[in-house]
Amino acid sequence: MTTAIQGFDPRTGRPTGNPVPAGTPQEVHLAAAAAADAFPAWSGLPAQERARALDAVADALDAAGDDLATLADTETALGRARLAGEAARTSGQLRLFGRVLRDGAHTRAILTPADPATGRPDVRRMLQPVGPVAVFSASNFPLAFSVAGGDTASALAAGCPVVVKAHEGHPATSIAVADVVSTALSGAGAPAGVLSLVHGFDAGVALVRHPHIRAVGFTGSLRGGRALFDVAVARPDPIPFYGELGSVNPVVVLPGAARERAADVARDYAASLTQGTGQFCTKPGLLLVPDNDELLAAIAAAVGQTCGHPLLTERILDSYLARTGELDAEQTLTTLATGAAAEGAWAVKPRVWQASLEVLAERPDLLREECFGPAGLVVTYRDIDALCDVLAQLGGSLTGSVHTAVDDHPEAARVAAVFRRTVGRLVHNGWPTGVAVCWAMHHGGPWPASTYPQHTSVGATAIDRWLAPVAYQNWPDSLLPPELQDANPLGIPRTTA
Amino acid sequence: MTTAIQGFDPRTGRPTGNPVPAGTPQEVHLAAAAAADAFPAWSGLPAQERARALDAVADALDAAGDDLATLADTETALGRARLAGEAARTSGQLRLFGRVLRDGAHTRAILTPADPATGRPDVRRMLQPVGPVAVFSASNFPLAFSVAGGDTASALAAGCPVVVKAHEGHPATSIAVADVVSTALSGAGAPAGVLSLVHGFDAGVALVRHPHIRAVGFTGSLRGGRALFDVAVARPDPIPFYGELGSVNPVVVLPGAARERAADVARDYAASLTQGTGQFCTKPGLLLVPDNDELLAAIAAAVGQTCGHPLLTERILDSYLARTGELDAEQTLTTLATGAAAEGAWAVKPRVWQASLEVLAERPDLLREECFGPAGLVVTYRDIDALCDVLAQLGGSLTGSVHTAVDDHPEAARVAAVFRRTVGRLVHNGWPTGVAVCWAMHHGGPWPASTYPQHTSVGATAIDRWLAPVAYQNWPDSLLPPELQDANPLGIPRTTA
Repeated sequence: MTTAIQGFDPRTGRPTGNPVPAGTPQEVHLAAAAAADAFPAWSGLPAQERARALDAVADALDAAGDDLATLADTETALGRARLAGEAARTSGQLRLFGRVLRDGAHTRAILTPADPATGRPDVRRMLQPVGPVAVFSASNFPLAFSVAGGDTASALAAGCPVVVKAHEGHPATSIAVADVVSTALSGAGAPAGVLSLVHGFDAGVALVRHPHIRAVGFTGSLRGGRALFDVAVARPDPIPFYGELGSVNPVVVLPGAARERAADVARDYAASLTQGTGQFCTKPGLLLVPDNDELLAAIAAAVGQTCGHPLLTERILDSYLARTGELDAEQTLTTLATGAAAEGAWAVKPRVWQASLEVLAERPDLLREECFGPAGLVVTYRDIDALCDVLAQLGGSLTGSVHTAVDDHPEAARVAAVFRRTVGRLVHNGWPTGVAVCWAMHHGGPWPASTYPQHTSVGATAIDRWLAPVAYQNWPDSLLPPELQDANPLGIPRTTA
Repeated sequence: MTTAIQGFDPRTGRPTGNPVPAGTPQEVHLAAAAAADAFPAWSGLPAQERARALDAVADALDAAGDDLATLADTETALGRARLAGEAARTSGQLRLFGRVLRDGAHTRAILTPADPATGRPDVRRMLQPVGPVAVFSASNFPLAFSVAGGDTASALAAGCPVVVKAHEGHPATSIAVADVVSTALSGAGAPAGVLSLVHGFDAGVALVRHPHIRAVGFTGSLRGGRALFDVAVARPDPIPFYGELGSVNPVVVLPGAARERAADVARDYAASLTQGTGQFCTKPGLLLVPDNDELLAAIAAAVGQTCGHPLLTERILDSYLARTGELDAEQTLTTLATGAAAEGAWAVKPRVWQASLEVLAERPDLLREECFGPAGLVVTYRDIDALCDVLAQLGGSLTGSVHTAVDDHPEAARVAAVFRRTVGRLVHNGWPTGVAVCWAMHHGGPWPASTYPQHTSVGATAIDRWLAPVAYQNWPDSLLPPELQDANPLGIPRTTA
C-alpha cells in the first residue's frame, strides 16, 4: 500500500511539485520514538522557555509567510491573499499560546492545605502534558489547521512533542512549513524530535496505533475521522482522539429579521456559504427562514451572483459532484439558485436547494448530512415549535446562528435553548464562518462536530486536550513543580480551597 | 437473560433481602426518557438552587445514615463503623459540590471583548451540562461510590439527571439510598426523573447504548469496564465513558526510609494493604523495597498479624482464590507472609509474595495485574535505574507513593519524574488508601487507572466530566446565561482576556 503522495494544482488538475514517498512503518516508529525521547526535555522546559520557542516559530513563519502562501496556492488554489492572511493567523495562534503559557492559568493549579483537625493531607494539583501526540492536518486550511496549525501550536505549548500526519492535498507546503518550524524550534533550543512529519494514509493509521502516542488531534471528514477514532479506541490502551468530523451549522432567520433585513441577510448568507468555495467547517449548510417570498427571492438573487472556485482536491470535487447530483435527484427538493463556476479544472458552481420544514421533517437525513463545498439547503418554516423540534433532532454542530430583530427575542431564546444542547457556539446576527482565535472561543460541539464535546480545537482552552491533572500529596516543597511550590515563584494564578 | 438480582450476606454466604427484578429494556428506556424530560428544568435551575437541593440530599442521607449503614452491612459485611463513616463521606461529597456550585469557578467563564480594530466579535464562553448521564455503582463503596456517590453528586451538581445502574452486590442498599435521594430531591423542588435506578447487567448495557445518555461514569473491573467502554465508543454517536478500571498503585520505599523507619513502614503497609479487606482501588498492590532484610522481616511479621474479613461478593471471592492460586503456582514468586482469615463464609487470608526486580523484569504481567482483595507483591530492587525502568513500563495507576528520608530526595525526584507520567497522584511518606475528598484531589491516571487521564472521579473537578463549553458570539446581554452577563449578577469568578 506504500505509494507516493503527489500534490496537484486545482486550477489545472495537473501534478505540481515532486512526489513524496509515503511513510513506512519504520519511519512512523522513528518519529514516535523521537517524540518520546524529546518529551522529558520539552515538557521539562519552564513554560516561559516554551513560550519563547513558540514566538520564535511564529517569527519564522511570518518571515516565510509570503513564500509559504505562494507555495500553498499552487497546491490549493485558495488564492495568495487568503493564504497570506492564513499565515498571519497561524503565527497569531502560536503567539496566543505563548501568552497562555506566560499567564499560567492553563495549569489550573489548586492547593488544598492540610487540615490537622480531620487528618486531611496537603494536596496540590496541576495539569501536566500527556506525552507525544499525533496531529492530522486538514485540507482546507493548509497553514492554520495543518503542520503548524492550532492543534500543533496547542500541543507544543502544553509540552507535548508532535508527529504530524500531512494532508495529501498539500504535501510540498507541509514539508516547507515543517522545515521552517523545525529550524526555528532547534534555534530556540528545543530538543530534536519535538516535531516530525509523516505522509500517507497507512502512516496515519500506524501513528494512531503507536504505543508512544498519547492523544490525537484530527480535522476532517466524518468517514475518515470515525475510522481513525475506532482505531484509537480499539487500542489495548485506548487514547483520546480529538476529532472535528463535520457540521451543518444551522442558521435561523427569525421573522422580524427577515422583514427588516432581507437583502442584508441574503447577501451575507451567499458570502458565508461560498467563502473559501464552501470548504469551511463552519459553512452555513442549513438556513432556516420564514416562508417569506421577499427573502427567498433575495437569497436566490444573491447566490445567483456568486462564483465557485476550484475545490481543493479531486476527491473533494468527486464528492461534491456526487452529492449535488443526489440532491438534484431528490423529489423533495427544488433548486433555489445556482452560481457560476470560475475558470479552473476543479471549479464548481455554488448550489442551493429549497424545501419546506414540513416535508423535510420526514427526511432528517437531508438536514443532517454535510456537503463539503459551496452547497446549501434553505428550509422554510411556519412555526417556531416545529422549528425547534427539528433543530433538536439535528446532529451536533460547531455553530448555531440566529438572526433577530428586537421583537424576535422571545423566539431567539427558545432557539438558543435548543442550540445550547446541540452546538458549541451560538452566533447572534452574524455568520458562522470566520472563527476568531481568542481566549473565549469554543470550536467544538456534540458528535459529529467533535468526538468529545468537552474539547475545542480553537482558542486558548484548546491546550486542555494535551494536559492531564497530577496531584501531589504531602510532597516536599523543594520537589514540587514550581507552579505548586509555596512561594509560587512563577506568579501564576492559583486557587486555594 | 432477565433474572432477579439477589443480595447475599458475605458473613454467611446466604441470601439477604428480597430478590429485585432485573430491569427490562422498557424500564431502561423509561428511566432515560424521564432523565431527558427532567434535563431542561434541572439544568435550568440557578446553580444556587441546585446547591440547596444537594444540601437537602446530604441532610437526608445524614438522617438516614445509621439505618443505611446497618442495611449495607448485611449486604457487604464491611462493618457498621466503616459504613457509618462512609455515609458521612457521601453526604460530605454532596456538600462539597454545593460549595463548588456556589463558588461558580467550575463554569470556567471566559469573556473576550469585541475588538473593533480587528473586527473580532464579542465572545463569551462557559461550561454547561451535557445532558442525562449514566452512573455505574461500585461494589466496594456501597454508599460513597454508589447510588448517591461521587459520580452522582458531581453529575447532579453539573445539572445532569442521572440514571444509576445499581451494583449487584448491594441491591437493597441501592434501593434504600435511591428512595432517600429521590424524596429529598423532590422535596427540594427538583423535577421527577432527575435520579432513577436500574438493576442488572443487561440494563446497564442498554443504558450505555441509549440515545438520551450523553456520558457514563463507572468504577469497577478492567474486564467489565472495557466491555462497557467498547459499547460506548461503538455507538453511532460515541459518548465519553469515564471509567476507573484498575490500578496496582506502586509504592517505592527508598533506602534511607528503609533504614530509618522499617518498622513503621511495615506496619503501615500491612494496614493499607488489608484496609477494607484489600478492596480499595488505591490498595498498594506493588511495594518496591531495597533488598533490606530487616524491612522484609518486619513486613512479614506485620502482614502475618493481619486478618482478612469476608469479601464483598462470591464473584470477588472466586476471583481472589483463583488469582492467589495462580500466584502460588508461579516459580518466580515466594510467599513472604500470610495473614489469618476472620470468621465468615467469604473471609480470606491476606497474602503477600516476594520476588526480586531482576526476576520480575522478565514477567511484567505479574507487576501489572491488579488482584482485588488483600494480596500484595513485594519486589526488592538494588538499583534506582532499573527501578525507574520497570516503573516506566507499568500500566497507569491512580497513585504512586514514595517513602523517603531526607537523603533520599535525589532518588525521590527521579521516581517522581516517572510517576508524573504514569500515575494521577503522587504520595510522599504516606499510603495511597484513604482518598481525601477535597478541591485539589485527583483520582485518575493513565489507562487502565482511567479511561481518560484528563478526568477525576473524586474532588471538586470531578464535575468537569459532565460539562462542555458553549460560546456565545455577539449575543444580546439579556439572552445570555447570568454567568456571562455584563453585570455578573451571580458574582462568579471570570476571566476577561
